[in-house]
Amino acid sequence: MKILIDTYGADQGEKVLVDGAILCKEKRDFTPVFIGNKEKIEKLIGGRISDYEIIHTDEFISNDEDPARAIRRKKDASIVIAFEKAKEEAYDGILSAGSTGALLAGGLFIAKRIKGIDRACLATSLPTLKGTTLLMDTGANMDCKKEFLEEFGLMGKVYLENVLAIENPKIGLLNVGVEEHKGNKLTKETYALLKEANMNFVGNIEARDLLTGKVNVVLADGFDGNIAIKTAEGVLKLLAGQMKDVFYKSLLNKLAAGILKKDLKAMFNKYSADEVGGAPLLGVQAYVYKAHGNANELAISNALLGLMDYIDKKVIEKIEGELI
Amino acid sequence: MKILIDTYGADQGEKVLVDGAILCKEKRDFTPVFIGNKEKIEKLIGGRISDYEIIHTDEFISNDEDPARAIRRKKDASIVIAFEKAKEEAYDGILSAGSTGALLAGGLFIAKRIKGIDRACLATSLPTLKGTTLLMDTGANMDCKKEFLEEFGLMGKVYLENVLAIENPKIGLLNVGVEEHKGNKLTKETYALLKEANMNFVGNIEARDLLTGKVNVVLADGFDGNIAIKTAEGVLKLLAGQMKDVFYKSLLNKLAAGILKKDLKAMFNKYSADEVGGAPLLGVQAYVYKAHGNANELAISNALLGLMDYIDKKVIEKIEGELI
Repeated sequence: MKILIDTYGADQGEKVLVDGAILCKEKRDFTPVFIGNKEKIEKLIGGRISDYEIIHTDEFISNDEDPARAIRRKKDASIVIAFEKAKEEAYDGILSAGSTGALLAGGLFIAKRIKGIDRACLATSLPTLKGTTLLMDTGANMDCKKEFLEEFGLMGKVYLENVLAIENPKIGLLNVGVEEHKGNKLTKETYALLKEANMNFVGNIEARDLLTGKVNVVLADGFDGNIAIKTAEGVLKLLAGQMKDVFYKSLLNKLAAGILKKDLKAMFNKYSADEVGGAPLLGVQAYVYKAHGNANELAISNALLGLMDYIDKKVIEKIEGELI
Repeated sequence: MKILIDTYGADQGEKVLVDGAILCKEKRDFTPVFIGNKEKIEKLIGGRISDYEIIHTDEFISNDEDPARAIRRKKDASIVIAFEKAKEEAYDGILSAGSTGALLAGGLFIAKRIKGIDRACLATSLPTLKGTTLLMDTGANMDCKKEFLEEFGLMGKVYLENVLAIENPKIGLLNVGVEEHKGNKLTKETYALLKEANMNFVGNIEARDLLTGKVNVVLADGFDGNIAIKTAEGVLKLLAGQMKDVFYKSLLNKLAAGILKKDLKAMFNKYSADEVGGAPLLGVQAYVYKAHGNANELAISNALLGLMDYIDKKVIEKIEGELI
């Protein structure tokens, strides 16, 4: 399998993408195709692997640019090259930690949407008390219409049925209360639409149940989904930090912490964003995975594994099949 | 000071409101005026305090009713009585754990809005690494306009300057990125408006910074603010539960946990919703505090203390002064 890796866009620079790919190769073999500065990438690889390709470019799209405009004009930008190459049969998918907007624009203008899908979305896997819950959208669409959320629901259903073998997944709507009449204009309209939709819609889900695994898919407008995952991320980080303060408070605490450290670390890691590593951009005719900008090498490696699983299960073809 | 306490609407029933008021009286003296079933309330008090009043009613507004309609029609509902009584000089403020919608409708139709304010909002105090951050709105307005958020900002400024003596508080906008061009239609429009507004607007705040104390006020549409606090609540509850599992995993873990338990409990308590207890409904001409539906007696007691502080500092008069 050949995966196109955009080496621009990660907060930690090219190194984290190269190291993440090498780490991933230890778990599952594939051919990384790095897109970026050839000399720099070769130096970073430092002979650790021999099975790789590099497509040289020094151009990239930053977070500050207008994504649609940049995608159209900057033909040599790493993410544009990735989308163009992905059209060739030789290449199986794309990983990028760069601008979400550019990724979305590339998906829409170069790969093109799946027929019958109006908007692409980021589907983030949340680790919960009962397996994985898919939150979608987490940031591709800032102002959604009810029809977009219905499409996200259909794509989420196909994704979970195929990638995680969850039969007839339970689909909920992120809202401020469980009652049908609760919410803003969008959630009220969406509730009415989903009740009639061809999916296992179980009603509204409050944000406090995002990680309890009550449902398999939580539908949200990209703005709200993004607020939810970043709030969760912030609370996790805060508590991990505060816990460290408790551990270092006294010698006795230090001793006790020594005993519990491993288990507590494993607990926090379970809910860490690095564990999931990234999210598929569902709805476009290319297998694309978005890693967080602040991803570490473990996150990149896990994102690559997720992407390859998504490719293996031919989810795009399955979504197309569902829509015909 | 006489505080009107709506005894209907808490998940745990009248008892939690009576017990919370009695607990609060140990910390600060005031006269609770319980509105609800006289016989039941007297039995719950059981002679523990003698300085109280009861206004009898068996009617209340539930979460399932249309709030505006119910406020207009149910003249004997506990919250309607509370708002009517609050107009009399003898009574200083209202505490309710009931329907947010009914509280808002009562505020708008009975107490009336403060002149110059279009929408009331719930201002929730978040405990952060550096003192309190006020998140507003957390659920009164589901679909906001940019002007509402500007008003929330002005009210938040006055509230913090007076209640917490924070000079020229830093005001941020809840958004999916820090860059000015980020966000949905509402946040983009609001950013442009706040740049020109008479407040210390410092730009966008990501949800992961809600509890780091970067700013003193975070402005959000009521839907988004509600998603954020409930996500945080859910993560806290999840981690507290998972931590218990770690503590009971082995005998050695149990011993170590015994040493750390007190400090860790204090850490979780600091961020618990009960610590704050409730939120003022800013923007109406009555001192109103909303406690969570699932409040315990500590939360009720803390909400009452917050309410009395809000009254002491004459925040409504100060907001009116600011708007003239």
